[in-house]
Amino acid sequence: MKAVSCQNGDLTVVDRPTPVPGPGQLLIEVLRCGICGSDLHARRSCDELADIAAEIGYDGVMRSDQSVVMGHEFCGAILEHGPKTRKFDKSGTRVVAFPLLRSGDQVHTTGLSAAAPGGYAEQMLVEESLALAVPNGLSTEMAALTEPMAVGLHAVRRGQVGNGQVAIVIGCGPVGLAVIAMLKANGVRTVVASDFSSGRRTLARTCGADIVIDPAVDSPFTATTGHGHFDSAPALFDLAVSSMEKLRRVPLWWHVFRAADVAGLTTPKHPVVFECVGAPGVLENLISAAPIAARIVVVGVCMEKDKIRPAMAINKEVDLRFVLGYTPLEFRDALYLLADGKVDGRPVFTGEVGLAGVENAFATLADPETHAKILIDPSSGATEPQLAKA
Amino acid sequence: MKAVSCQNGDLTVVDRPTPVPGPGQLLIEVLRCGICGSDLHARRSCDELADIAAEIGYDGVMRSDQSVVMGHEFCGAILEHGPKTRKFDKSGTRVVAFPLLRSGDQVHTTGLSAAAPGGYAEQMLVEESLALAVPNGLSTEMAALTEPMAVGLHAVRRGQVGNGQVAIVIGCGPVGLAVIAMLKANGVRTVVASDFSSGRRTLARTCGADIVIDPAVDSPFTATTGHGHFDSAPALFDLAVSSMEKLRRVPLWWHVFRAADVAGLTTPKHPVVFECVGAPGVLENLISAAPIAARIVVVGVCMEKDKIRPAMAINKEVDLRFVLGYTPLEFRDALYLLADGKVDGRPVFTGEVGLAGVENAFATLADPETHAKILIDPSSGATEPQLAKA
Repeated sequence: MKAVSCQNGDLTVVDRPTPVPGPGQLLIEVLRCGICGSDLHARRSCDELADIAAEIGYDGVMRSDQSVVMGHEFCGAILEHGPKTRKFDKSGTRVVAFPLLRSGDQVHTTGLSAAAPGGYAEQMLVEESLALAVPNGLSTEMAALTEPMAVGLHAVRRGQVGNGQVAIVIGCGPVGLAVIAMLKANGVRTVVASDFSSGRRTLARTCGADIVIDPAVDSPFTATTGHGHFDSAPALFDLAVSSMEKLRRVPLWWHVFRAADVAGLTTPKHPVVFECVGAPGVLENLISAAPIAARIVVVGVCMEKDKIRPAMAINKEVDLRFVLGYTPLEFRDALYLLADGKVDGRPVFTGEVGLAGVENAFATLADPETHAKILIDPSSGATEPQLAKA
Repeated sequence: MKAVSCQNGDLTVVDRPTPVPGPGQLLIEVLRCGICGSDLHARRSCDELADIAAEIGYDGVMRSDQSVVMGHEFCGAILEHGPKTRKFDKSGTRVVAFPLLRSGDQVHTTGLSAAAPGGYAEQMLVEESLALAVPNGLSTEMAALTEPMAVGLHAVRRGQVGNGQVAIVIGCGPVGLAVIAMLKANGVRTVVASDFSSGRRTLARTCGADIVIDPAVDSPFTATTGHGHFDSAPALFDLAVSSMEKLRRVPLWWHVFRAADVAGLTTPKHPVVFECVGAPGVLENLISAAPIAARIVVVGVCMEKDKIRPAMAINKEVDLRFVLGYTPLEFRDALYLLADGKVDGRPVFTGEVGLAGVENAFATLADPETHAKILIDPSSGATEPQLAKA
């Protein structure tokens, strides 16, 4: 079979033997496989990622000198059932799968480990127990978005955006767009989206963002009424000494910060910020720019060491919640939200390409204006990304 | 009156005019005033603190070239009532007060602003509306601990230690000791305390820590049974594919981390870690050493820029909650917890000194072995810290 190998940063089409499903596994024909931002990261920086995973206890992440077939956002059709499978789903059934694969007595992350080849290929293996049939006639392209949409759903759940709280999404790449779509699907009333790219801002609006900001011009933190700055000190203190119980719950220092948002301090309406950029310096910029008591959900993966000012975070009592991936239940929920039409993946899906065009697609994705999510169609001969018609 | 001035890092006894209480203010005789870790910080680094506060909106924090009377942990006796006070409390009544002071149309932080002189003095001003009479015959020394105990209470509340969760306190200076005491007062069953100093470890035990660790020898993260490491992968995955609902809530990557604590992943028993050191590098060390899904409450104030590895925090889905100070209600609660005997401040209180000995007390506090909290007694002539008899 044909597959795209990543080795020493090179992406090349290679011939590989068709994998043989082991006990509990299925061989599937890959119908579509998304190119993930973490694939772009891994192509250049997988050794850093592998070192960190190894430090925590998993030594199976791909290394730059290995030949690895990436791709963990796939939808395929069942070709073969391995031994000890339940065979509930007939051959030809379209499935998506939580991307973990058994290999001997180990478990590996599909598409990010040399031991578990992914969906940049004509065929691949999945665990039957982690596979879900595509329901409700959902299109193959949309089913392939289950994985990135699950990332958005997990981040939104970890963010615990309360009633009346504003959500602010920083960065509108595929992850930011998935977060926006999932925030709206979860009933968050006001979603502010911020991106330097006008193309991405258009996609953010299509995904449901209520207010869209160019951070070169505007601040996402002053974009909503009632959440701007407050400059008539010492009102907080005066309210406190008039013995209003609510204001007595306001921390000491905030009484003297003129920038404090009184409404935000007295009701649980601090914004929840989703950091979906993952570049050095973004975190510190957010800590400095965010209002007092902001919760920052860190979804973007910054692989480098990053500097923050703890004293600024302390003065504002910021919460940083780092998130990664999703759970099996969230993966399933994302699939059903797509299939039930509760979440629309179409704005995220911008292009398609064949295996021979993966290198070009990676290059195209470096520019945010044209594309967000490009899906690989292994049956296609396209060597340049084609605009999606979905 | 006599007071200790801090200017350009020098601490000297000076004569100052006795302050005159304005509308709503009280003049009090300072009976005791604690030396806070933030005073030690402010003596050397107040300009950095002032810059950060100014960036948020408060430009009143002390500057190194000003002559400032520090001291925000005080207990005093009412000497004079200013105009428009309610005069509920007679002259001579002992009070503590939330350390904010009005000055013209501004509000300033008592003892950390040139505009609101603090308790390193024979007399000082407080706002009557923020003052509380010392109840229940609580000793003056213990009443002076209201402020640091409120810091501990606020951190504990922000930490939201759940039923069955272990609390781990890193650093057993006065803040760490207050956190330990408040954790126990709040019914947390297992409190692990960690400090390089054997003197501080002894104090931690007296404050109620259940397990006390020398981090040069042991890890606080493996100190409790059921919270150690786990090295029989791929158990998590196997449990997940056997379709246990609980394990299906486990994020993707954790299925492959052999270090994962299965008990911690399936029940809300991730530890809550209280960082009470505030030195550069401590945060990154904790992120690297802490178990998956740890919540880290950052109480220690690191004034310098600090480096972290966001990718490590992301892989572990760490929560960082930065905290500062306390609310007026928490200040009141801390006083009553002390007065009702629910919290014992005595282990924290280690010494006393006169105004002329403040410089020596600061020097003594640089060594953690002998002292934790030294109280200033402005009526004392002691120029060296005397061991507390309380």
